[in-house]
Amino acid sequence: MPIPAPVLSELQTLLGERLSSTQADRDHHGGSESYHRAPPPDAVAWPETTQEVSAILQLCNRHGVPVIGWGTGTSLEGHALAVVGGLSLDMARMNKVTEVRSEDMQASVQPGLTREELNTELRTTGLFFPVDPGANASLGGMAATRASGTTAVRYGTMRDNVLALEVVLADGRIIRTGSRAAKSSAGYDLTALMVGSEGTLGIITELTLRLHGQPEKIAAAVCAFPTLEGAVECVTATIQSGIPMARIEFIDEVSVRAFNGYAGRNFPEQPHLMIEFHGSEDAVAADAERFGELANDFGGQGFEWAATPEDRNALWKMRHQAFPAQLSVRPGSTAVVTDICVPMSELAGAVAAAHEDIAADGMVGPILGHVGDGNFHSALLVEPGNEDELKRAKALARRMAERALAVGGTISGEHGVGIGKRALMADEHGEGWQVMGAIKAALDPNNILNPGKLVPERN
Amino acid sequence: MPIPAPVLSELQTLLGERLSSTQADRDHHGGSESYHRAPPPDAVAWPETTQEVSAILQLCNRHGVPVIGWGTGTSLEGHALAVVGGLSLDMARMNKVTEVRSEDMQASVQPGLTREELNTELRTTGLFFPVDPGANASLGGMAATRASGTTAVRYGTMRDNVLALEVVLADGRIIRTGSRAAKSSAGYDLTALMVGSEGTLGIITELTLRLHGQPEKIAAAVCAFPTLEGAVECVTATIQSGIPMARIEFIDEVSVRAFNGYAGRNFPEQPHLMIEFHGSEDAVAADAERFGELANDFGGQGFEWAATPEDRNALWKMRHQAFPAQLSVRPGSTAVVTDICVPMSELAGAVAAAHEDIAADGMVGPILGHVGDGNFHSALLVEPGNEDELKRAKALARRMAERALAVGGTISGEHGVGIGKRALMADEHGEGWQVMGAIKAALDPNNILNPGKLVPERN
Ligand SMILES: Cc1cc2nc3c(=O)[nH]c(=O)nc-3n(C[C@H](O)[C@H](O)[C@H](O)COP(=O)(O)OP(=O)(O)OC[C@H]3O[C@@H](n4cnc5c(N)ncnc54)[C@H](O)[C@@H]3O)c2cc1C
Ligand SMILES: Cc1cc2nc3c(=O)[nH]c(=O)nc-3n(C[C@H](O)[C@H](O)[C@H](O)COP(=O)(O)OP(=O)(O)OC[C@H]3O[C@@H](n4cnc5c(N)ncnc54)[C@H](O)[C@@H]3O)c2cc1C
Repeated sequence: MPIPAPVLSELQTLLGERLSSTQADRDHHGGSESYHRAPPPDAVAWPETTQEVSAILQLCNRHGVPVIGWGTGTSLEGHALAVVGGLSLDMARMNKVTEVRSEDMQASVQPGLTREELNTELRTTGLFFPVDPGANASLGGMAATRASGTTAVRYGTMRDNVLALEVVLADGRIIRTGSRAAKSSAGYDLTALMVGSEGTLGIITELTLRLHGQPEKIAAAVCAFPTLEGAVECVTATIQSGIPMARIEFIDEVSVRAFNGYAGRNFPEQPHLMIEFHGSEDAVAADAERFGELANDFGGQGFEWAATPEDRNALWKMRHQAFPAQLSVRPGSTAVVTDICVPMSELAGAVAAAHEDIAADGMVGPILGHVGDGNFHSALLVEPGNEDELKRAKALARRMAERALAVGGTISGEHGVGIGKRALMADEHGEGWQVMGAIKAALDPNNILNPGKLVPERN
Repeated sequence: MPIPAPVLSELQTLLGERLSSTQADRDHHGGSESYHRAPPPDAVAWPETTQEVSAILQLCNRHGVPVIGWGTGTSLEGHALAVVGGLSLDMARMNKVTEVRSEDMQASVQPGLTREELNTELRTTGLFFPVDPGANASLGGMAATRASGTTAVRYGTMRDNVLALEVVLADGRIIRTGSRAAKSSAGYDLTALMVGSEGTLGIITELTLRLHGQPEKIAAAVCAFPTLEGAVECVTATIQSGIPMARIEFIDEVSVRAFNGYAGRNFPEQPHLMIEFHGSEDAVAADAERFGELANDFGGQGFEWAATPEDRNALWKMRHQAFPAQLSVRPGSTAVVTDICVPMSELAGAVAAAHEDIAADGMVGPILGHVGDGNFHSALLVEPGNEDELKRAKALARRMAERALAVGGTISGEHGVGIGKRALMADEHGEGWQVMGAIKAALDPNNILNPGKLVPERN
């Protein structure tokens, strides 16, 4: 159902040229980095204030018009697609740092600000915001997907680093969740409920974030392993031995080949770990030495330390470009990206099983991941429009998810549900998925906030 | 409304002698450690399995009978009182460690197990569960109140240390929230929603907890300060300098006097800090030295290190008996216990203001707290039945809460809402409190789970 003309005209009055129905703007807000496809939204709005977001939601709620939050559109499960039409609410113009409180190691920011923009603003404060999903995503989108990334093993995820939120509810009411205190027992944890709710319970209009001290010393390295098992078991041993890794990433040989081609490197085509240590000069040296000994036990060889900050940045840039690099292995392809997360003791088995299953199918599916959390991805490369391949990729993804659940893991470590993981939600949560639906119905009775995502279909 | 006879007889059939309506059992489940008073519940049940909990809730839900979870009854805001009658559900018989998975540093436990019992069972594993509210509370009760305590500054609160739950909903449905994976983005964070919900959304029947490695070295000390401001500013400076404290507790001179009397000590009657470091031998030595320098800057003197584990245990035992010690300052008294938590930069001001306000009133109100989190308590001692004192104590408590909110803090750092903090919830959360009510109504439409607590009155 398209947006009724009177609603569009009220929106126009409210927003002026910050409302658009041009094909270009609609198409831009109808795309996805992954294989998911849907018709574009009917219109796009760029609010500049919380009050405007509230007015838009009141209006849309009255007329049953779907509203889909849009950060930078990098989510991988079709989260921000307008699957039943409606208004795309692009938060890009709400992109200010509202306040930095250095003594409390906190910043308040608007949701459209990206993590790189925030860290640029923080550069001179001695503080930084650690959550790093690779993509230069918006902080609102990251909170909405409960994002994490390479540094979660040390600094936690968005769950751990969002202290408080301002949220506009479906009916336009504005609430504040959490506080600036380090902890609270004053009622239900609405902050945690909103983090990871993917725009289905409210639109985030401000975030209060925990910051961390910039480490005195950073050291990063890559290291090759003769076997996948050796690399992954080295990770498990490292975590269990309590060495405080800031990052510990696994990259399989297919991904290494992709990097070599895409970033002009010549790493040996073997499984690798990419690691980083943060701390005082002495602590980093000690941690690196202990890790070196462990890596040695598992056959690690050819340590390559990033000598300068530039080398280090180049290393992580390469890692962050893994997705386009992987896609380039098969030019023109798109990907079904898996995202399981398992207990550490199950990690080696889960990676090996994924590897074998992909090999048995014959699909190209490079594997890498944030293995310090037990989380890894395979990008199952499919030809756009090739239904058979898509089906096989989805079947592989489902088997991976089922194996994760069988060992006490989760179907999504960090990407979220969107439309892509919805069919697996009942497998993971059973009746708990219905509980999510009941909460959604209580807070958004007209089902206008990102309908068709995350929760069960409304009866 | 008393429990209808047919319901009681069905419960009897289900539970046999594990259902009681004797006055003694009812009275035991109608008491509170604080000043809150209510009539006892109509009956007490001791379930032994999740299935029994489910059957009890189905039955009570059908007949609109209130069910109030009971752990060890140590909560301080009348949380577990049967304010409108009903059934007290005592979880004491569900007190087993279900599984310890050392490699993953996790344990699954039943809710009636206490934290001390868990740590006794873990003694030989090299692991421990750090959350420590002083009282030997049940782990179910601790999750239900989102408890923390002396070690939260290092290891976090129940929010951070509960990975997964089994919960029985009001209608008897059994759900599992979370997983054994370190992180997940698979939908709403029902674990975080249940943690801190004070038995109003479901009864917790199993918890999966994060464990931590027993530190190689532990060092603890007390240290006196000439002024309250000096002690508190030393804490702020310590936290800001990033010294990894395992515990850092403030104790004012009235509390010191209470300890001296109750535990037979002779500390100088001045503000003190009690501190603890965990880590390797070297790290602890380095941390202690850095802290010593800071303490010196703020006038700290007379460091007394606990030389043996026995001395250390005696020190923390004294701290953990602070509440009875404080009550003993005024024999026969009970207490209104405050629990505000503020951003670190506001801590010194908040403690000083509380101190002055108490002094101006003339009430006896010793102050202490987990100041590394910005959280502190005053125990406002009142004579039971003295309405004027109670009114003054509540007014003081309200002013403290209002000052906390004015600087971005919270009305409760760790004790929770129960009945005692309910009148402050709208001040802290505004419309957010109504959102909590909407969630409660969605999950417990008949309002049988701990009615009269935490959320707004149902219309
Ligand atoms: C190359 C690449 C690498 C990636 N690596 C990682 C990784 O390591 N870890 C990880 O976690 N993710 C990763 N992702 C996924 C993606 O970056 C994250 O999901 C990110 O958090 C999305 O942020 P966004 O601003 O792009 O949100 P969008 O894609 O714009 O939106 C995501 C969801 O959030 C909602 N939303 C957006 N803004 C708001 C708001 N203000 N209020 C309420 N809801 C809102 C949307 O409606 C949508 O449901 C990767 C993606 C790519 C393309
Ligand atoms: C001397 C003293 C010191 C204290 N110090 C601290 C401190 O430092 N930090 C702190 O956080 N608290 C502290 N407290 C408060 C108290 O110990 C905590 O609130 C504790 O978490 C309560 O646990 P309990 O098992 O006694 O719960 P109870 O008092 O029995 O119950 C508390 C609430 O949880 C609910 N509940 C209990 N079990 C379940 C279950 N299985 N499922 C669902 N709901 C359930 C009850 O209905 C009730 O609403 C202190 C108390 C005392 C007396």
